[in-house]
Amino acid sequence: MSLDVHQPALIGVDWGTSSFRAFLMDGDGNVLESNETDQGVLNIEGRNFLGVLEDHINGWLERATLPVIISGMVTSRNGWIETPYVSCPAGVEVLASNLTRHVAPSGLEVYLVSGLTTRNDGVPDVIRGEEVQIAGLVADGIREGMIILPGTHSKWLTLADGVIENFATFMTGEIFDAIRTQTILGRLMSDGPTSAESFRLGVEQSKRCGTELLHTLFSVRTLTLFDEMADDKTPDYLSGLLIGAEIQGAIVLLGNPKRVWLVGRRSLLARYQQALQALGIECIRTGENIAALGHHAIARAMGLVS
Amino acid sequence: MSLDVHQPALIGVDWGTSSFRAFLMDGDGNVLESNETDQGVLNIEGRNFLGVLEDHINGWLERATLPVIISGMVTSRNGWIETPYVSCPAGVEVLASNLTRHVAPSGLEVYLVSGLTTRNDGVPDVIRGEEVQIAGLVADGIREGMIILPGTHSKWLTLADGVIENFATFMTGEIFDAIRTQTILGRLMSDGPTSAESFRLGVEQSKRCGTELLHTLFSVRTLTLFDEMADDKTPDYLSGLLIGAEIQGAIVLLGNPKRVWLVGRRSLLARYQQALQALGIECIRTGENIAALGHHAIARAMGLVS
Repeated sequence: MSLDVHQPALIGVDWGTSSFRAFLMDGDGNVLESNETDQGVLNIEGRNFLGVLEDHINGWLERATLPVIISGMVTSRNGWIETPYVSCPAGVEVLASNLTRHVAPSGLEVYLVSGLTTRNDGVPDVIRGEEVQIAGLVADGIREGMIILPGTHSKWLTLADGVIENFATFMTGEIFDAIRTQTILGRLMSDGPTSAESFRLGVEQSKRCGTELLHTLFSVRTLTLFDEMADDKTPDYLSGLLIGAEIQGAIVLLGNPKRVWLVGRRSLLARYQQALQALGIECIRTGENIAALGHHAIARAMGLVS
Repeated sequence: MSLDVHQPALIGVDWGTSSFRAFLMDGDGNVLESNETDQGVLNIEGRNFLGVLEDHINGWLERATLPVIISGMVTSRNGWIETPYVSCPAGVEVLASNLTRHVAPSGLEVYLVSGLTTRNDGVPDVIRGEEVQIAGLVADGIREGMIILPGTHSKWLTLADGVIENFATFMTGEIFDAIRTQTILGRLMSDGPTSAESFRLGVEQSKRCGTELLHTLFSVRTLTLFDEMADDKTPDYLSGLLIGAEIQGAIVLLGNPKRVWLVGRRSLLARYQQALQALGIECIRTGENIAALGHHAIARAMGLVS
């Protein structure tokens, strides 16, 4: 334990598409204070990124001179400062040595974590922000295995000896929304209580159909047409079909794990947990604030905290 | 050749979701006159199906008393008169013996062709209207093989000894539209001239990725991000990915054909032909008006024409 434990030593910022989270940490990476808003990269009025950042961290900087490390979509083409992607495999050391230092006109100095890129089946893939969460898991002692961050764009990553080896993006959440709002399947749906049973039927159908969706999706219509499923059960069935197809696709691409770590929002994790367990895969949910742990690990590898 | 060749003997109506087509035929199934409108099942003002029908065929009926045979989505739940689906396998004899006779309040008597149903992987599938087009192909001498009717919902059918054995629906066109209008992939696209080369790249990607789409679709974004594809080439690339995945899925479900028959609109057929040929499958485009041929074959099997 360092001498300045519980003294502010680092500010970490996880700045994604739809949310902004800032952490004040001590020298050991303990979170002393944090704040979270919906000021994600797509919600910054007049693209005043510096102003939003300063609003949230200047109070902390008045107390002490602290290094500031930032990660997420804020470093993308549509963000504040675009940084190049770093190729996989990449661990904490690579992330640290590829930090981009930026001094704002106001004099504020920040370090930006670059996203990662990989190639699978001949085409590129990218992450921005998830690599810091994985660095946090590694700092927390997880050095091997497969990690899933479910979401609008789900990310699957493989970890070997504490290094991110490969990853893949699945557009599951966004495709669900597009089907729900824009196709005949959505028009035939009605709202009802959540049905774990219908979700399970969707996952089981995806076990039979593998990654195939263009035909399998039509069963959302025909099962109601033949009164084999109620209209208000189809949203959960569709969710099961899509998450099931995602899992089947990830297994083909990245390998068939015995267990996985799940990172993210509680409600969505429960669905993934149910689907994975139906396929015989053990799930471990990870803790909160792993992004802050990751910022701390990268900052320490760079020598920004002792 | 019958004596009354070139004399009106039958009216056939192919009444789908988005179009209405009526044919006046002689006793050999030759089309003497026809008309086509956009008065599909979803575009009938006040659901006045009988009025629309009479507008188009009463002129013909004034000349002679003719049997009227109708097929397509007009017999679905949202159509004019709902008829039950008939199970596969089914050929012309089965379609003829399952005609539904309906006498309208106006006295007009019509015969409705029922759609077909099948089950694959434990879930039902349905067609309404395509079975008559296939009956037309059979009447035209095609008795074995695989037939594709590309569209918003593509239909693949297998034919053995002149009987429809099995079929599958693929929501390819509708999913393309949903992705184009409702996802980040669509927002990043721009319009440009049609690119057969980008379409080919999409088909080749689907050869590597099989039926997988939730991950593969993300390449529409990353290829432009890394300047490996121009924004205005991505609509054709996406089209290639989806049609390629449809073909991969159909092969798994219905078998791997050496050649297929293609039925439908010319512009879409060219894409399917390009994709199928890239996968080593020979394509034969079929003629027009096969629906009328099918109506005639069913009417003859039922004894409505001699």
